Amino acid sequence: MNVSIAAHPDRLLPADPGTRSIARSLLERVQDLPIISPHGHVDAAIIEQNTPFPDPATLLVSPDHYVTRLIHASGIGLEYLQPPTASPREIWRLFCAAWPLFEGTASGYWLRTQFDSVFGLRKELDPETADASFDAISAKLAEPGFRPRELFKDFNIEVLATTDDPLDGLEAHARLAADPSFHGRVLPTFRPDAYINIAHPAWNTSVERLIAQAADGETGYRGYITALENRRRYFIDHGAVSADHGVRTPATLKLEQSDAEALFDRARAGKADDRDRDAFEAHMMYQMARMSMEDGLVMTVHPGSFRNHHHPTFETFGADTGHDIPFAINYTEAIRPVLQDFGTAEDFHLVLFTLDETVFSRELAPLAGFYPSVYLGAPWWFLDAPDAMLRFRSAVTETAGFSRSSGFIDDTRAFCSIPARHDASRRIEASFLARLVAEHRVTEERAHELIVDVVDSSPRRVFKL
Amino acid sequence: MNVSIAAHPDRLLPADPGTRSIARSLLERVQDLPIISPHGHVDAAIIEQNTPFPDPATLLVSPDHYVTRLIHASGIGLEYLQPPTASPREIWRLFCAAWPLFEGTASGYWLRTQFDSVFGLRKELDPETADASFDAISAKLAEPGFRPRELFKDFNIEVLATTDDPLDGLEAHARLAADPSFHGRVLPTFRPDAYINIAHPAWNTSVERLIAQAADGETGYRGYITALENRRRYFIDHGAVSADHGVRTPATLKLEQSDAEALFDRARAGKADDRDRDAFEAHMMYQMARMSMEDGLVMTVHPGSFRNHHHPTFETFGADTGHDIPFAINYTEAIRPVLQDFGTAEDFHLVLFTLDETVFSRELAPLAGFYPSVYLGAPWWFLDAPDAMLRFRSAVTETAGFSRSSGFIDDTRAFCSIPARHDASRRIEASFLARLVAEHRVTEERAHELIVDVVDSSPRRVFKL
Amino acid sequence: MNVSIAAHPDRLLPADPGTRSIARSLLERVQDLPIISPHGHVDAAIIEQNTPFPDPATLLVSPDHYVTRLIHASGIGLEYLQPPTASPREIWRLFCAAWPLFEGTASGYWLRTQFDSVFGLRKELDPETADASFDAISAKLAEPGFRPRELFKDFNIEVLATTDDPLDGLEAHARLAADPSFHGRVLPTFRPDAYINIAHPAWNTSVERLIAQAADGETGYRGYITALENRRRYFIDHGAVSADHGVRTPATLKLEQSDAEALFDRARAGKADDRDRDAFEAHMMYQMARMSMEDGLVMTVHPGSFRNHHHPTFETFGADTGHDIPFAINYTEAIRPVLQDFGTAEDFHLVLFTLDETVFSRELAPLAGFYPSVYLGAPWWFLDAPDAMLRFRSAVTETAGFSRSSGFIDDTRAFCSIPARHDASRRIEASFLARLVAEHRVTEERAHELIVDVVDSSPRRVFKL
Repeated sequence: MNVSIAAHPDRLLPADPGTRSIARSLLERVQDLPIISPHGHVDAAIIEQNTPFPDPATLLVSPDHYVTRLIHASGIGLEYLQPPTASPREIWRLFCAAWPLFEGTASGYWLRTQFDSVFGLRKELDPETADASFDAISAKLAEPGFRPRELFKDFNIEVLATTDDPLDGLEAHARLAADPSFHGRVLPTFRPDAYINIAHPAWNTSVERLIAQAADGETGYRGYITALENRRRYFIDHGAVSADHGVRTPATLKLEQSDAEALFDRARAGKADDRDRDAFEAHMMYQMARMSMEDGLVMTVHPGSFRNHHHPTFETFGADTGHDIPFAINYTEAIRPVLQDFGTAEDFHLVLFTLDETVFSRELAPLAGFYPSVYLGAPWWFLDAPDAMLRFRSAVTETAGFSRSSGFIDDTRAFCSIPARHDASRRIEASFLARLVAEHRVTEERAHELIVDVVDSSPRRVFKL
Repeated sequence: MNVSIAAHPDRLLPADPGTRSIARSLLERVQDLPIISPHGHVDAAIIEQNTPFPDPATLLVSPDHYVTRLIHASGIGLEYLQPPTASPREIWRLFCAAWPLFEGTASGYWLRTQFDSVFGLRKELDPETADASFDAISAKLAEPGFRPRELFKDFNIEVLATTDDPLDGLEAHARLAADPSFHGRVLPTFRPDAYINIAHPAWNTSVERLIAQAADGETGYRGYITALENRRRYFIDHGAVSADHGVRTPATLKLEQSDAEALFDRARAGKADDRDRDAFEAHMMYQMARMSMEDGLVMTVHPGSFRNHHHPTFETFGADTGHDIPFAINYTEAIRPVLQDFGTAEDFHLVLFTLDETVFSRELAPLAGFYPSVYLGAPWWFLDAPDAMLRFRSAVTETAGFSRSSGFIDDTRAFCSIPARHDASRRIEASFLARLVAEHRVTEERAHELIVDVVDSSPRRVFKL
Repeated sequence: MNVSIAAHPDRLLPADPGTRSIARSLLERVQDLPIISPHGHVDAAIIEQNTPFPDPATLLVSPDHYVTRLIHASGIGLEYLQPPTASPREIWRLFCAAWPLFEGTASGYWLRTQFDSVFGLRKELDPETADASFDAISAKLAEPGFRPRELFKDFNIEVLATTDDPLDGLEAHARLAADPSFHGRVLPTFRPDAYINIAHPAWNTSVERLIAQAADGETGYRGYITALENRRRYFIDHGAVSADHGVRTPATLKLEQSDAEALFDRARAGKADDRDRDAFEAHMMYQMARMSMEDGLVMTVHPGSFRNHHHPTFETFGADTGHDIPFAINYTEAIRPVLQDFGTAEDFHLVLFTLDETVFSRELAPLAGFYPSVYLGAPWWFLDAPDAMLRFRSAVTETAGFSRSSGFIDDTRAFCSIPARHDASRRIEASFLARLVAEHRVTEERAHELIVDVVDSSPRRVFKL
């Protein structure tokens, strides 16, 4: 059992000693800045109720599809990674046995950092000490200092956005905002996918409920649009700053009102085909942009994932179980209808994400380098990793500079991984900037300003915080 | 106000001290070689008439869409970056205020280098000293040594190609060639896009003029082809070595003569649709290759840019105003018809450019590594930047070596940026080769030969200079 | 004539001294491990008969399309690189004159390494000493120690897979296996492309023979399937561990039995069109996966090459003459039908290769990081080069770790290049891991285990050796 490398002060920094020393000083500049997390998937109720975290496996393994997927790839069925087939302790043993699979991965990096900095494990994980690490983390989790609100403070989180269903009452958010003993900001995010993707099995009933609850008595397509507008307003009233869209492709389309109505009615009657689905989703992206322009919610777009790729796994274990697989996308033509009409609209912020790295230099940097509305979303999901983040900076900066990107987005449902993820991002920003300084492309003085801008000012500016 | 880093002797060189020292010695080998610029957009008349440059803003900001686009992205309307809305001094102040946006960008690098090496500014640009830098550059521009012909000589330019309309009389080129007091070569380049893209609003009238002026009395499609052949001949007689094609996609197609005639007639009658447009452009690319094979003009192809992406900006400010956005292309199937027939033709040179980096390793290096006619165009436009140029070399060299690329292409209309761009390219070539030497993949002796080949011999060989 | 750099102990290792020193120690760990070559194109008969190698040109130049293609690109017709137009000595002189073209290429690296380590040339190749190097290599080739079986042992090859026609009798393999004096393993690989691609000119007659010889008396589509199954069994009985598929695209499709029969009959009648070809190939990929799941042969897929791009060259010189050109592919949707049904099947191994680097991070790492059946094929063909191999590791590791890749595949028909290729791969693995160690992302101790896993255990595990 080795001493963990998680706490090495130079982790992720470039190997060249001169560059590393610049990176170190840049990192120091931002290491203690508060965490701004404008997009993620933590449940607000957990923080509001300050629910103690369960055991290590239920906290760190079972619900994290980054983790279970790689164990699954090694031949272990997903059923062995969740109750009731396996107990938390058994799951943890499997996880410790599988730990070597995570060498070199982003997940492995975040986990190792958490083990050290959150749970105080000073040794590398090891199957032979699985029970000991399980017990050590369990003991920590039982301490009062390890409940969500205490960690929220320890983690130095200033803003944490959640992702919420448009019909969510946002009670937890409201109570947190009203609670004088809680000093962070926990903001809801409007995520209407299930109401927009007509291929979703629950679309019809979701829309039914949406109209019933929020359409001010209107019906049909008009009621649907009104209800969405009303619910956005409700979210804004509860602190939301953005609306997020997990679409299949980045296509956008401006339909005539009558065509949109006909399409909507066809879909409601269960008669929409694949082309209808695509057209409606694209049209609704246009509508969402229009609403964002009007109500000021920042619009974030997360396209290009083939969801639930392995149908048998989806049937047994549901969505978000590790088999969403990216595919090639293009933004240049797809996003044009929105940009034609709103690309220079004041205060409209459109943050574009991709799982297809090829669009970084080819499309996103050129778009964000012209349109005031367009911001480059930080590297997302499979790309939220040290090398990939460096490739992102290299791909976009020469065209778009530093001012056009969103700042780091952790996009996580793993609350305890938030500091590790932000720390990794800051280290990579420091590494990239240090290279530019070492190559005499940016002065060290300016680099110190830029890293603050990238880490702190960018997310505030882009997400209107 | 900091001391500028523009003059640092090691700028852009790799941080590792051993590699940097190799890079330095390679750079020395080529630093004083003359500039060969076989493709660009400087106006020959400016050199011929030796027109004094206007003020700093009109020289360096307003016409440079690399610069205005990023200021525009920060929320400043393009109207504020050009007369009459703003005076040159006001534009310059805006530019200085926006200067931090350019940190890390290629444009920022070129500008900073110009400020130092052309205009002698020894401090970083700064909004507080905007008037002072405006005045300092203005004073320089008023000196007799700062007129185009003097700079041409100072810049050590040996060959400068312009880009010209097929019906241009090329008088400026002729007078320069005949002028014994001018020692450079300023060569025209045949660029027939407006006569080939039938979707161009002026296509019909352009073709009309073309046939009227140059078809030797022939009419219709035959007259059109004859006229193009005649004008190419006229260009060759005025020193042209290449014909350039800014096509939408790299598609090529060999139509039967009768089909081509019918398509041409349909287009002339205003009855061509999108498919006709694509087929005609592809067919004409084939014809241009055929003509190049016959008359020896090097054929350069610049595809894959969605021109004038933001229609409202195009309506107000016209073309080349910063919103041409790249998209994914493929060459393998698209260019095949031309390569089937001319890919091994003696003395036919086809230089292929891309804004989609993915084709470098996947298609262009394999094509250029087999076909004697195919050359890899240097990284272009958004890719003409230090990191992107290194990615290019890394992507193509292992398959195609150093002999199959075009040499650096500045492609610029910003005359004063030419030395900065060529200098940056030479530094990157030195950096790449230095790494290969440091990794014992190329001997230092051979690297000294290769850098001369890449910087000097390649453009002469590929562009038949 | 310079001293060759081929033998430099630090070749290909990173320039940064600290990282290099880590890489050196990692390399030492695996430098003497035996070569496992689970996919390649050496002819088993050469080893079985221990045929002396011919002259240097016939061994190293004429048959190697990596080499001839780049000489061809420089303007030398392929006829000058093979008899009868040119003698071996004349070909060798041309090759030596063209040698500078190979600087920086993967082929150049392998050749230089062979010259030094196999043939003992201590100087760089040089046109002025072409005859001397020809004579020196010829002399070596005449020595008894330079026959295939002796080199096989010298090269420390443990396993070498060949690629074979399904109707091949595999006599050479059988004799080698039965020969007590030969200690290596030479395994056949089942490669049914010619029987599956109905566009292949010989498809019909090949299928005719296949059914006649191996269908157990069955006919039509059923006989065809039975014959393929029988021949796979025959290969397995002769030691085969894998079946390889050089398909146009990675498309897979599950047709109904009756539809497949109808398609087969249409193709046999010469009435299949392009859509039929695509559907049949995709369907047969599904069938091959089904057979692999049943009989345990590892399935390897090599898609995305436009074969015989230059038809005139194909007409004159045949296939595999240097003009197979990659194009963009996608796996996510294409491979889904197979993964739906067999992606989690026990013991089904599917190794996916690509010539389109963009799928590494976007599709292959996510797929291999979930599906137990999917393995990442090593960088292939144009990507089997130092920088490209580093890009591969960087692109896939953060998502899929080290356990999901195939291990190195040399894929070569150039027997004498095998040690150079494996050595290069080991150096790159050491370089990549050394960086992770230097960046404190992996402990040095774990890196020593990982490099053994990657170099030795992975190919054994993935290819069931």
